[in-house]
Amino acid sequence: MTCPSRVRVVEVGPRDGLQNEPVIVPADVKVALIEALAGAGVTTIEAGSFVSPRWVPQMADTADVLARLRSMPGVSLPVLVPNLQGLDRALAAGVREIAVFGAASESFSRRNINCSIAESFDRFAPVAGAARAAGLRVRGYVSCVLGCPYEGDVSADAVAKVAAALLAMGCYEISLGDTIGTGTPREARQLIERVAADVPIDRLALHFHDTYGQALANILACLDLGVSVVDAAVVGLGGCPYARGATGNVATEDLVYMLDGMGIETGIDLHALARAGQSISRHLDREPASKVARAMAATADP
Amino acid sequence: MTCPSRVRVVEVGPRDGLQNEPVIVPADVKVALIEALAGAGVTTIEAGSFVSPRWVPQMADTADVLARLRSMPGVSLPVLVPNLQGLDRALAAGVREIAVFGAASESFSRRNINCSIAESFDRFAPVAGAARAAGLRVRGYVSCVLGCPYEGDVSADAVAKVAAALLAMGCYEISLGDTIGTGTPREARQLIERVAADVPIDRLALHFHDTYGQALANILACLDLGVSVVDAAVVGLGGCPYARGATGNVATEDLVYMLDGMGIETGIDLHALARAGQSISRHLDREPASKVARAMAATADP
Repeated sequence: MTCPSRVRVVEVGPRDGLQNEPVIVPADVKVALIEALAGAGVTTIEAGSFVSPRWVPQMADTADVLARLRSMPGVSLPVLVPNLQGLDRALAAGVREIAVFGAASESFSRRNINCSIAESFDRFAPVAGAARAAGLRVRGYVSCVLGCPYEGDVSADAVAKVAAALLAMGCYEISLGDTIGTGTPREARQLIERVAADVPIDRLALHFHDTYGQALANILACLDLGVSVVDAAVVGLGGCPYARGATGNVATEDLVYMLDGMGIETGIDLHALARAGQSISRHLDREPASKVARAMAATADP
Repeated sequence: MTCPSRVRVVEVGPRDGLQNEPVIVPADVKVALIEALAGAGVTTIEAGSFVSPRWVPQMADTADVLARLRSMPGVSLPVLVPNLQGLDRALAAGVREIAVFGAASESFSRRNINCSIAESFDRFAPVAGAARAAGLRVRGYVSCVLGCPYEGDVSADAVAKVAAALLAMGCYEISLGDTIGTGTPREARQLIERVAADVPIDRLALHFHDTYGQALANILACLDLGVSVVDAAVVGLGGCPYARGATGNVATEDLVYMLDGMGIETGIDLHALARAGQSISRHLDREPASKVARAMAATADP
């Protein structure tokens, strides 16, 4: 195993995680979560989104959350932006980085954002262009890279095509999402090998959901290809409201535990991370969907 | 990844899994579980143990369970045997295979079986010898191979020494147990590389607990070394009563799902396996500790 010596962990709990929570989490709780994650050493934290509040009421207070956050030098706080109206709101909020998203599956694209993949690019390209013209960094997401809840298999060629389009649009990084968590290690590895033929591997990130318990194994299978950016959500927050049975992102604690054990630096203090997770779990009144979090709590380790 | 084309899954749920359940599971439920597992295609199922009923009351009915099982040609049903009295009971029950166990940690050996590692071998060697003389196959377990709840780190040399002793005692296979589930992939791989210097790799099995969510990744890290036997427990049953916070074995469903996805044959029907897991979960009135089981139930897949 010739893994990278350092992995950058992108924490998506405050957005991809919380967005599916049915009960609105107050802005001060979101602020405390983001600040606790930054305090634990996370340097990229997806802080919210400027989508329609009717679509995602949980994210309606993103501007308020951003305004309340203390200054955190060295921490990137990307927000998800689906269109030019969203970009305007992001710019008004002083955002420095946005994320745009496409799907590798036509059916998912139509059901999730009500347009074809090609149409979604007609929509996102002006957003990415205007954002870059305003000096913002743009991160791209591709969903359904290892399977679609409606179509089943998704070809690695289709993923590579969408990823390359996002790169051409100016995305500094493209995060490949196993949205429904059905992927297994060999497929994950073959996918990265295929996409890396069209997009430099140092521009790729892994975004794997743990619905079938495969996320860490899938990440491991890709690490020695040279991928060194991994998305995760503290206490495994999140999921996909459009995919039945699709539970959360891989838990950040479980990922950091594995990387720590492998001698791969993340800059994250696992104990401080676990405390951030305990706090949001208490607020949500829920057991953490992180085995490391549960084991540390059981041994009173943090 | 040059993984084996076939993996033999050793199901340990009916013994290693159930033994820690505080409420006694009736013999007919154990029989139904074992028969359902065999029906799903599992060819090695740890069926019980002949330890003192005062130590492990849950296993007091092993002879009764074995007597009630229908004939299942091609299925091995090892039972755990700690001493010559246990072997006598196993022989009386018509057992064809037993398992003996040692620890790679002195502290764990003393606290778990109240003797040193060396003394444990003085105890097990006659058991293994008598079993083989009676025509039985003997499987060996080594616990604490990637960490001890009392000592912390355990050296790969210590594990190799115990594994080699079990081999010398006549064990046809030695199962290496990460009893507290603290191991990570690089350590797991390095351990197997070290032990394989003293014990042929086709005699080794992986027995990893999922306490820290690392089990599948650890298994993956070892597969391409040539290990092709993996222990698991349906719905992640089990744990270690002597290690605080140590939860169950890797779930058989999660393991089989990964192997299926990688094109590695197990001979196990995942849907039939999931039904066996649903049944015991209903009896225990517990959510399965298997993400695959939960995802399949959510999508009404089985």
